[in-house]
Amino acid sequence: MSLIYALDIIGTFAFAISGALVASKKEFDLFGVIIIAFATAVGGGMLRDVLINAHPINWIGDLNYIWTIMAAVVFTFLFKSKIAPLSKTMFLFDTIGIGVFTMLGVQKGLAYDLHPFIAVVMGMVSSVMGGVTRDVLTNEVPLIFKKEIYASACLAGGAVYLLTYYLQLSETIQFISTIFTVISIRMLAVKFHLQLPKIKDDIFGR
Amino acid sequence: MSLIYALDIIGTFAFAISGALVASKKEFDLFGVIIIAFATAVGGGMLRDVLINAHPINWIGDLNYIWTIMAAVVFTFLFKSKIAPLSKTMFLFDTIGIGVFTMLGVQKGLAYDLHPFIAVVMGMVSSVMGGVTRDVLTNEVPLIFKKEIYASACLAGGAVYLLTYYLQLSETIQFISTIFTVISIRMLAVKFHLQLPKIKDDIFGR
Amino acid sequence: MSLIYALDIIGTFAFAISGALVASKKEFDLFGVIIIAFATAVGGGMLRDVLINAHPINWIGDLNYIWTIMAAVVFTFLFKSKIAPLSKTMFLFDTIGIGVFTMLGVQKGLAYDLHPFIAVVMGMVSSVMGGVTRDVLTNEVPLIFKKEIYASACLAGGAVYLLTYYLQLSETIQFISTIFTVISIRMLAVKFHLQLPKIKDDIFGR
Repeated sequence: MSLIYALDIIGTFAFAISGALVASKKEFDLFGVIIIAFATAVGGGMLRDVLINAHPINWIGDLNYIWTIMAAVVFTFLFKSKIAPLSKTMFLFDTIGIGVFTMLGVQKGLAYDLHPFIAVVMGMVSSVMGGVTRDVLTNEVPLIFKKEIYASACLAGGAVYLLTYYLQLSETIQFISTIFTVISIRMLAVKFHLQLPKIKDDIFGR
Repeated sequence: MSLIYALDIIGTFAFAISGALVASKKEFDLFGVIIIAFATAVGGGMLRDVLINAHPINWIGDLNYIWTIMAAVVFTFLFKSKIAPLSKTMFLFDTIGIGVFTMLGVQKGLAYDLHPFIAVVMGMVSSVMGGVTRDVLTNEVPLIFKKEIYASACLAGGAVYLLTYYLQLSETIQFISTIFTVISIRMLAVKFHLQLPKIKDDIFGR
Repeated sequence: MSLIYALDIIGTFAFAISGALVASKKEFDLFGVIIIAFATAVGGGMLRDVLINAHPINWIGDLNYIWTIMAAVVFTFLFKSKIAPLSKTMFLFDTIGIGVFTMLGVQKGLAYDLHPFIAVVMGMVSSVMGGVTRDVLTNEVPLIFKKEIYASACLAGGAVYLLTYYLQLSETIQFISTIFTVISIRMLAVKFHLQLPKIKDDIFGR
């Protein structure tokens, strides 16, 4: 459990940095950067908790999220010019975040007695909607709707989690197999430039 | 009641198609198309339920919404090139959706003991905010704020529903008169190019 | 208390006018103008109430907000050409709104037993997120993320409120010192063109 918590914090940190970077590219001021970092890092979990009526909301119930986000903003200020070369690390952290957020979302959905399919959707909401909120607030078309196979990785991870959960495998195995699924799908997708089909006549069409 | 449910599903289907079409024009991938179809179809009811604290939220409590939306996305993929010629059917389905969503929203508001005026607002939220969410997520200025008399049709429909409700007319009459109001206002508006006034000095101004 | 309520209504009125002006510049129709005025005026408090699970939501529990917003829209229609010259009055009203919304937000947060730091964040949410909602709905990058020291004024006001609250000073003193802090920071910022630093290498960088 405490490993998962540690990875949750690492994921929050990585998501917050990604938000801070986008906001600083847009020339937002310090306040704007904090808000975007915040929205990116906890936006998904916040929406999940509002939708399933889980109070207190993630960041209201645990101040560590806010401290982590603040630390990520300071880190971004200090090391901005050095974060680009770190991008493999960032990608790894970010992918860990996606995996952990997905798993925690599915877990929470099941804990609230949701239908397993809805629980998987909640896993996806947790890991995807933070980035969507970031893009809406910075007036961009959400990146995830166009290019990334990211959401599919979440769905697959959620399904794997569900499977291991119903097979009553140990929590460690649930965790490792979920994370492994998410990370490997995402890495393969990036490596081989996999994309989801577009509706623009390229499946059935001509 | 089961007629209303059937029309709710038809409205959901029509709204989801409208979302899928907008998303595919923007070259979103399959995931993006599903999310936009989803947001368009259940976004209004979801916001209503969050605001009035009605849990479980519409699509969490009834999986049929999700299946309907999935079917609508598949339908859009398959028949995309043929949907344009169908536009009168689409317009009819869409308008049925508006009418039913309005009525269900007002009904739910009253069931939660809201002031009748707020209940009518909830009817409007149910049928309008899905399209607004679609436009925000696709980075467009919400269409409804500029051109359509759509929202006025909802308000009028909501008011008619309220009237028939307090007159204790039968549910069938409540239903028919509400839908009829919405459909006829919207059709007349489209036919005669009716628009709401703009604030740009064209009422009182110079 | 009733003075605070009066100022809350004045702030709502001012925020609604600011929303109506933005919407009318965008050539929204009457409906669009009302929705943007509404979102600007009650959006912050609405988000706060959803996040802390305070039901009924602000405008659902008190119809006066809606009447005030309607009055503000009518006022904007009637006097649009004359509002610009009034801009000092508008600025004052708007700043009163910020101060009151901040204080009420912190107060409500404390009443819901939130951590004092989270309560201050709720004060900021109350006064800031209405404008952010306005900008998202009109498809603009939120102004506040770029230029205004506005949010800092809220945070400082919230902190002052907290201080006077824990010192158990009278409600009048809590109120006056909070409002005074917000107004004076904002006025000084505008007068001397104070801005928050940007992350673009202008602090630590080169």
